[in-house]
Amino acid sequence: MTAAKDTPHLSAELAAFAANLRYEDIPAPVLRRAEDLLLDCLASILAGASARAVQAIDRYAATMGPADGASEVLITRRRTTPLFAAMVNAAAAHVVEQDDVHNGSVFHPAAVVFPPALAVAQALGRSGRDLLVAAVAGYEVGIRVGEFLGRSHYKIFHTTGTAGTLAAAVTTGRLLNLSPEAMLNALGSAGTQAAGLWEFLRDAADSKQLHTAKAAADGITAAYLAQDGFTGARHILEGPQGMAAGMSTDADPSRLCDRLGERWALAETSFKFHASCRHTHPAADALQQALRDNNLTEADIERVVAHVHQGAIDVLGPVVNPQTVHQSKFSMGTVLALIARQGRAGLAEFDAGLDDPGVASFRGKVEMELDPEVDGAYPQRWIGKVTVYTRDGRKLHSRVDEPKGDPGNTLSRAEIEDKTLSLGRYAGAATEQELRGLIDAIWGLEKTEKVGALLPGKAA
Amino acid sequence: MTAAKDTPHLSAELAAFAANLRYEDIPAPVLRRAEDLLLDCLASILAGASARAVQAIDRYAATMGPADGASEVLITRRRTTPLFAAMVNAAAAHVVEQDDVHNGSVFHPAAVVFPPALAVAQALGRSGRDLLVAAVAGYEVGIRVGEFLGRSHYKIFHTTGTAGTLAAAVTTGRLLNLSPEAMLNALGSAGTQAAGLWEFLRDAADSKQLHTAKAAADGITAAYLAQDGFTGARHILEGPQGMAAGMSTDADPSRLCDRLGERWALAETSFKFHASCRHTHPAADALQQALRDNNLTEADIERVVAHVHQGAIDVLGPVVNPQTVHQSKFSMGTVLALIARQGRAGLAEFDAGLDDPGVASFRGKVEMELDPEVDGAYPQRWIGKVTVYTRDGRKLHSRVDEPKGDPGNTLSRAEIEDKTLSLGRYAGAATEQELRGLIDAIWGLEKTEKVGALLPGKAA
Repeated sequence: MTAAKDTPHLSAELAAFAANLRYEDIPAPVLRRAEDLLLDCLASILAGASARAVQAIDRYAATMGPADGASEVLITRRRTTPLFAAMVNAAAAHVVEQDDVHNGSVFHPAAVVFPPALAVAQALGRSGRDLLVAAVAGYEVGIRVGEFLGRSHYKIFHTTGTAGTLAAAVTTGRLLNLSPEAMLNALGSAGTQAAGLWEFLRDAADSKQLHTAKAAADGITAAYLAQDGFTGARHILEGPQGMAAGMSTDADPSRLCDRLGERWALAETSFKFHASCRHTHPAADALQQALRDNNLTEADIERVVAHVHQGAIDVLGPVVNPQTVHQSKFSMGTVLALIARQGRAGLAEFDAGLDDPGVASFRGKVEMELDPEVDGAYPQRWIGKVTVYTRDGRKLHSRVDEPKGDPGNTLSRAEIEDKTLSLGRYAGAATEQELRGLIDAIWGLEKTEKVGALLPGKAA
Repeated sequence: MTAAKDTPHLSAELAAFAANLRYEDIPAPVLRRAEDLLLDCLASILAGASARAVQAIDRYAATMGPADGASEVLITRRRTTPLFAAMVNAAAAHVVEQDDVHNGSVFHPAAVVFPPALAVAQALGRSGRDLLVAAVAGYEVGIRVGEFLGRSHYKIFHTTGTAGTLAAAVTTGRLLNLSPEAMLNALGSAGTQAAGLWEFLRDAADSKQLHTAKAAADGITAAYLAQDGFTGARHILEGPQGMAAGMSTDADPSRLCDRLGERWALAETSFKFHASCRHTHPAADALQQALRDNNLTEADIERVVAHVHQGAIDVLGPVVNPQTVHQSKFSMGTVLALIARQGRAGLAEFDAGLDDPGVASFRGKVEMELDPEVDGAYPQRWIGKVTVYTRDGRKLHSRVDEPKGDPGNTLSRAEIEDKTLSLGRYAGAATEQELRGLIDAIWGLEKTEKVGALLPGKAA
């Protein structure tokens, strides 16, 4: 923190913000939104309980980690150390593609922030307020890191894995009450572990679950080590051999500390409405609107052109003929087929749609085109634009400026509760009664003296 | 493995080689060298026992991991699961900068190969031969990955952390008897976790220990998950969003499967003679020779120019005024000062040299200059060239073509035993009697039916 005034020490500013953030500093609507996002995340974790990749990570955690502890593996009700509880919960959080997203950073904060927040708070017996402050700190830092690393980073690297490691470190570090100096060390140790490549997507491989699991686990490692005096690079983000130097060609240092304490990036985070990759959502909303406004059914549609940003083409383009349910959530053709045929693209629709010849046939009618306006607005705004060509020769344009779930078009608490009940029961991971208890616990989190288990343990 | 002949599937070839390698396929001198390198690594681990950063990682392992298991934490004699034993041992292996190096890949294989090899062999009760085959597979793959990623990678990324994650995965995968297909998945999961940035070096931060610890741990994670059916990217190395795409600008695919089964890269690996960063060794040897040939002492020297490759300038250049013993091992001025003043640059000399004004004064007499011949030969050959300007006006050139410890100038088994006794006692981590038992165990490894603990457990 001895940098000259003309060369701001950005990593240190970020660390100091995270270390010094107090509950009283955070506006009430931001805290309430943090609770919303936490509940939404817990629901996503439960919905991921039955996924093969998640269960493999859970078995690995059981092989390598202790069989007891204070931290809760939500999907099995086991208790273990925070490292393994956060690893498994984070693996589960992202698998059904229903967790939150921050548009500007193309980053899914909840999946990597709340699992460490919950596991470490349980391990240390911290209060609900402590957990909320830690989560807000994690969101604010992680989102800014994602924005800083930019679009060139996201073309190759899974930002939720990379920026997510720093978000998890900050969240954990806050619960450990790290000093600004120790928090800077935690950032250094997190950044030098940050990883995650998009290459897996073209094979429909399981890496996405590994990325969130490892971001959470590695962030915990970074923060616990920092608490014990372990040092890290002091300029891990902006230094000449740091993250931006190695993993970005368009990093923007002005984003890193953008209006810290004034701008609340957490409140800019969107809930997911469709059960698919976020890149498909704007076009899905635009198609939904086109169907509604023109009273169309699937049978009326000759073909659909989705006018998209380059990032959508990069991520979704390789997925031509999806082989798994998970991969189908990265297929624009599948998503628009489900919207056209069933009006919605939820978990159940994806499960049923994989082997449905009608869905496969509709996929052939969908194409993506790079749209300069959509691309220019991205990633700050995710504009949805489709052109629908009907069998009777009409050419219909539809446009949605703010997709459902975005801050200006957000979910109510009632909608979040509904989503929680739906997701939590999807995999049979929890009963309705348990989910209602979970909902009550989160709405009462602010008054919780000591965060304990959120679900009953497994009967022996 | 169904790739067309004209587009070889390099990651799959590498995986198949590792999965199919048999003890009988490996020439006896390569197996004997593997034993040499294992013993050299164990000695380095013990010498790292007292390092603060290593002890922090050990405490972290004890906080998060189980308090029992079959795998040995060599520095504390605790037993735990292979994940944590390998993590701690790997952290310790690289700290005193006495572990091996492969010149062409600028990669330290032992530190990331043997800790998983030992910990997993102990956990699964594998034979000494199994351990050796696994280690050879790890060396062959890791070295080729390092060569493939190239010099642009090494400018920003710590290859021992990145390529090391794949080496650790292959080593572990071999002990788990993964099929070629599962081994390919292990490579995918390893590559997408691969990380490690050089940024820490300018702050003398502890990240180097984290990099080896995490490479070992993450490689174990990748392989165990693959055994359980967890999939990874099939082209993690060469794919359009894979490691080379994200972390290299000069990747050379022809290196990845270079003469697999014919060329034994393990036998190209060098032992370290000086206790410093390998980039300092060629110049240190050349200065030693200049002193000897011209019968010079420190007092005769006006200044020294070390003629080096660009990589030396990149790594050592930022270290102008070292603040810690570890950082001083990356200071060309310090290394040459110790050679000039004491004739050698071993662990004890570095400890004593940090606050020695004579060393600091000599540092000011040393400069590095980029040398086109040295740079052109690097990294295949590490030529040492210095010019010594004497107080009496002479300008002496000295050149060493193969540094001590390199394959053509290697250490004998007697020299390795001496080095083991010296390193193992450095931190008081083991007694001479224990070390002699360790030496016998490694020389008898080939005949060991079931790898057990190498050192006596801690008395209660």
